[in-house]
Amino acid sequence: MQRALSVSRMTGNSSTFPDWYQAIVREAELAEVSPTRGAMIIRPWGYGVWERIQQTLDRRIKETGHENCYFPLFIPLSFFAKEAEHVEGFAKEMAVVTHHRLKQVDGKLAPDPDARLEEPLIVRPTSETIIGDAFSRWIKSHRDLPVLINQWANVVRWEMRTRLFLRTSEFLWQEGHTAHATAEEGREETLKMLEVYREFSETVLAMPVVAGEKPENERFPGADKTYSIEAMMQDGKALQAGTSHDLGTHFAEAQNIRFQNSAGELVHCHTTSWGVSTRLIGGVIMTHGDDDGLRLPPAIAPRQVVIVPMLRDKPEDAEVLAAGEALVKVMGQVIALGEPVRALLDVKAQKSAEKRWNWVRRGAPVIIELGPRDVAGGTISFMRRDRLRDGDKVTSQSMSRADFLAGLPALLAEIQQGLYDEAKARLDANIRTDIASFDEMAAYFGAAAADDEDATAFRGWVRAPWARPTGEELEAIEQKLKALRLTLRNAPMDQPATFGPCLFTGRPGVEEILIGRAY
Amino acid sequence: MQRALSVSRMTGNSSTFPDWYQAIVREAELAEVSPTRGAMIIRPWGYGVWERIQQTLDRRIKETGHENCYFPLFIPLSFFAKEAEHVEGFAKEMAVVTHHRLKQVDGKLAPDPDARLEEPLIVRPTSETIIGDAFSRWIKSHRDLPVLINQWANVVRWEMRTRLFLRTSEFLWQEGHTAHATAEEGREETLKMLEVYREFSETVLAMPVVAGEKPENERFPGADKTYSIEAMMQDGKALQAGTSHDLGTHFAEAQNIRFQNSAGELVHCHTTSWGVSTRLIGGVIMTHGDDDGLRLPPAIAPRQVVIVPMLRDKPEDAEVLAAGEALVKVMGQVIALGEPVRALLDVKAQKSAEKRWNWVRRGAPVIIELGPRDVAGGTISFMRRDRLRDGDKVTSQSMSRADFLAGLPALLAEIQQGLYDEAKARLDANIRTDIASFDEMAAYFGAAAADDEDATAFRGWVRAPWARPTGEELEAIEQKLKALRLTLRNAPMDQPATFGPCLFTGRPGVEEILIGRAY
Repeated sequence: MQRALSVSRMTGNSSTFPDWYQAIVREAELAEVSPTRGAMIIRPWGYGVWERIQQTLDRRIKETGHENCYFPLFIPLSFFAKEAEHVEGFAKEMAVVTHHRLKQVDGKLAPDPDARLEEPLIVRPTSETIIGDAFSRWIKSHRDLPVLINQWANVVRWEMRTRLFLRTSEFLWQEGHTAHATAEEGREETLKMLEVYREFSETVLAMPVVAGEKPENERFPGADKTYSIEAMMQDGKALQAGTSHDLGTHFAEAQNIRFQNSAGELVHCHTTSWGVSTRLIGGVIMTHGDDDGLRLPPAIAPRQVVIVPMLRDKPEDAEVLAAGEALVKVMGQVIALGEPVRALLDVKAQKSAEKRWNWVRRGAPVIIELGPRDVAGGTISFMRRDRLRDGDKVTSQSMSRADFLAGLPALLAEIQQGLYDEAKARLDANIRTDIASFDEMAAYFGAAAADDEDATAFRGWVRAPWARPTGEELEAIEQKLKALRLTLRNAPMDQPATFGPCLFTGRPGVEEILIGRAY
Repeated sequence: MQRALSVSRMTGNSSTFPDWYQAIVREAELAEVSPTRGAMIIRPWGYGVWERIQQTLDRRIKETGHENCYFPLFIPLSFFAKEAEHVEGFAKEMAVVTHHRLKQVDGKLAPDPDARLEEPLIVRPTSETIIGDAFSRWIKSHRDLPVLINQWANVVRWEMRTRLFLRTSEFLWQEGHTAHATAEEGREETLKMLEVYREFSETVLAMPVVAGEKPENERFPGADKTYSIEAMMQDGKALQAGTSHDLGTHFAEAQNIRFQNSAGELVHCHTTSWGVSTRLIGGVIMTHGDDDGLRLPPAIAPRQVVIVPMLRDKPEDAEVLAAGEALVKVMGQVIALGEPVRALLDVKAQKSAEKRWNWVRRGAPVIIELGPRDVAGGTISFMRRDRLRDGDKVTSQSMSRADFLAGLPALLAEIQQGLYDEAKARLDANIRTDIASFDEMAAYFGAAAADDEDATAFRGWVRAPWARPTGEELEAIEQKLKALRLTLRNAPMDQPATFGPCLFTGRPGVEEILIGRAY
C-alpha cells in the first residue's frame, strides 16, 4: 500500500501521492496543462484510453436502448434563470459568452462593443435545461415514451483549483437524459444505468466500486435521488466515478415536459440523467499505477501488446522489423477479451531501452523485446506490465511464438482479472466496519486530519449504520465530518438485514453508509 | 400511396430545392433548429449518420499514421492577436467568453461584474493556434518529426445566415494538424489527406467529388496551398466537402515551431491542416435524397435493414415479433461491406404503414415488411430504398429467407455502388467543357442569375482552361464571377497535357479550373 506513495523509480525522489499522480500523467504522456487556464490537453495515449472508454461504454449505453444525439454547446441564459428559480443549490460558476466578434480597439484585439449579444450564452455545464426544452417539444403522448438519449460532449465548469483529469474547467463526458411515464420507470432507469456503470467500471476499467445512494446533502440539485459509484484510490480516498440521478418530476415541472396519458390526462414526465467523464482516467491511474508508472487494464489499453525491436544498425535490423510487422498482423487476428488484439511495432528513432521504459511508464500490458535471436529461433521474449518486478528485478519470459500466440487471449484476460483482483482486495481490506462511535472514527482519521490536504497517511473508508438524518441535523453532521476532511460517500446498494445504532445520533440505524476522504 | 414528401427536388417544379432540403432534414428526423441561435440539435438518426462517418473516416485517419488527441475549447485571445498580425483575411466572427460566473443583478440573472476574465477567451473556430503552441513545446529535434495528430471536436463560427448541417454557428468536425521536417513532406501529407477524403467520400458516402487545388483567392488564410474536394448537389451547385491545407512555414513562423535538423541548425517546421465536418451530412442529403425523402448509402446508414412487423393485435403477433428478432440476430452475423449488418426490428407503437414511410423518409437502404404469412412460409418481402418506385408504383420483392440472407452482402454492395454510379453519372454529365468564352459562360448561367439565391434553374459546372492569374487581376475576375453568383471551385488534380486559351484573359492556359455556383 505504501509503495505507491513513493515515486522513487520514476523521479528519483520519494514524494507525496499527488506528486506521484502528476508524475504519471506527465511521464505516461497522458495529458498536460494547457495555456487555457484550468483546461487540459489530452495527449494521444490519454485520448486513446478515452476512446476505449467511449467505445466500450457506448456499446452498453446502446444495448440498453439509448440513442446518441447532439445538443448545442451554448445555452441561452434565460434557461438557467428558469432553473435558478426552481433549483436550490444551482451552481453559478459558468463560462459566459457575451460577444460574437473581435475588433481592433485602441490598437488591441478585443471584443467588439458593437457585437454584444442581446442575451448572453452559457457554455453548457450540463445539458438538463436544453435537452429538457427539446423533450417538452418532442413528447406529446404516452406513445412517445420513454425517450432514451445520450450525448458525448465537452462541458465547462469554472473550477478554481484544477487537477488533470480529476477536476478541470473543461472535460469530456457522456450525459444520458431520459423521460418516462411513471415514477417506477424513472427509478428503474436510474438504477439500470447505475448498474451499467458498476459493471463497466469493474469489467472494463478493472476498478472495483461500491454502488449506492448519495445522502440528501450530496444530491444533484433538483434530484429526488442521486446514486453513485465510488472507487477507492491507492491513497485511500474515494473517487466518485459516476452518478445517476432520479429527477422525479422536478425538471419536468420547471420545463413543462408533459404527456397525455392513456386516460387522456396531461401529466408530467419523470426524468433521469446520468454521466461519467474523463475523470475515470484519473481513477484508472490512481487504481492501477505503480512506482514504475501506469498499468493499463488490457480492455482500455490503446495498445495491448507493444513490440520493441532490438535494432543495432546492422543488416539484420530489416529482418527484425519485418518479423515485428508480421507479428503485429498475426496478433490482429487473435481475439482477446472479445476484440482483435491491438498491437504495435514501435519504430520510433529511439534506443530500445528508452522505448521499453516508455511503454512501461505508459502501462502497455505486454511488452515484447524482439531481437535477431528471437527471429531466428521463433521465440518471443516479453514482460508483463502487471508483474514487472520480482523485488527490484525486472522479470521477463520467453516462449515459442506459437505458444505465445495461443496463450495471448488467456494472458490478456489474466492481466485484466489480476488488476481487478488486486484492487478489489485493497478495497475490501480497507473498509472498516468495526468502528462504533464518531470519536473512534475521529481517532482513526485524526492523525491525517492534522496534515495538509496532500497528506500521505493512508486511511481507507468507514462503513457504519446511520439513522439517515435529514435537514439541519444532517448539516451539523456534515460540518463535524468536514472538520476531519471527511464526507458521506453513499449508502451501498447491498445492505444487511439489521443495523446497529447510528454512528452519529445513537438512534437505531436504518442503513449503512460509507464515510471517507474524497477527491 | 401518397408520397412522403410533397416537394420535388429537381428543376422546374413549384417547390424550391432549399424547401425540399429542409423538408428532408425535418421529415427524416435528422436535425432541428435549436433555441440557441444558429446552432442545431442533431437528432438520433442524423447523429447515427455522423457516428458512421466518424468510425469509417477515423479508421482511415489512423491507418495513415495519425493519432487522436484533444485540445481545449477555449483559446486565449492573445493567441489570435498573434495570428491577426500574421494572417491577412483573419476572420473575426467568433464567440467571446468574458465572464466566469452568473449573479442576480437587479433581480435578474446576469454575468457577474466581479467575475470578468482578465483575458477574454475565444471559443475555437479552428485550432491551428492552440495546437501550434503545443507543437512549439513538443518539437525539439528532427527525431520528433513528423507529428501527426487529429481531433474530433465542436467548433464555433458566428454565422449570420445559417442552414442545418450546411452552415451552423456550431458544428462538429475533425481537424488534422501535422508538422514535418521538409516542404516536400508537408506537401505529401496535404495531398495524402486530400486523397483520403476523396476515397472516403466516394467509397463511403457514395458521393463523387472532384479533388483539386483552390485558386489563390480561396485559400485558407495563411496557407501556401489549399486543396478541396467538391461535390455536385442535385441543384447543380458545388459543395466544398473537405479541405486540406499546406501551411508551409507560415504558421510555424508565427508560432515559433522549430526543430534542430540533422546538421544541427534550428529551422522552422512545415505544417498542414485538414478537415471535414457535419456539412458532409448536408452533402449526402443533396446527393442522394429523392422525392420520398433521404436515401442513405448502406456504408453510413445507422440501420441498413429495418424490419417492420405487420401486427394486427392478434395472437400471431408474438410469432411475428419473435421471428423479427431472430432475423435481426441472424443478419447481425452476416458481413456486408466489411462489417456486420446493422439491422433493426421497429417495435414502436405505430401503425405499420406509418412505420414503413418513416423508414422510407429516413432512407433505410432495405425495408422488410414481415407478416404472419412470411413467417409461416419462410419468405422475406422487402423494398429497396434506392429503387423504391417504378413510376408511381412502390416496388417490393419476395424471396426465401435463405436466399435473402445469402444475397444480402451483394444487395447492400449493389445499393452502395448504385447510388454512387447515379451521382457520378450526374456529375459527369453536368460539367461543361465546351464553353470557350466568359460571355458564353455568362449566357449559360445568365438565366438563373436574374433569380434570387434560391433559384431552381439547374446549372452544372464549367471546366475551362485558365492562365492562373493572381493578385488584382484575379480579384477583378472574382468580381465579374460574383455578379453571376459564380465562384472558382478548384483546379482538378487530373489535368490534360495541353490547354486552350484562358477563359478570362485569353492568354495561354496553364491548367483547367472548375467554375460553378456553390454552397
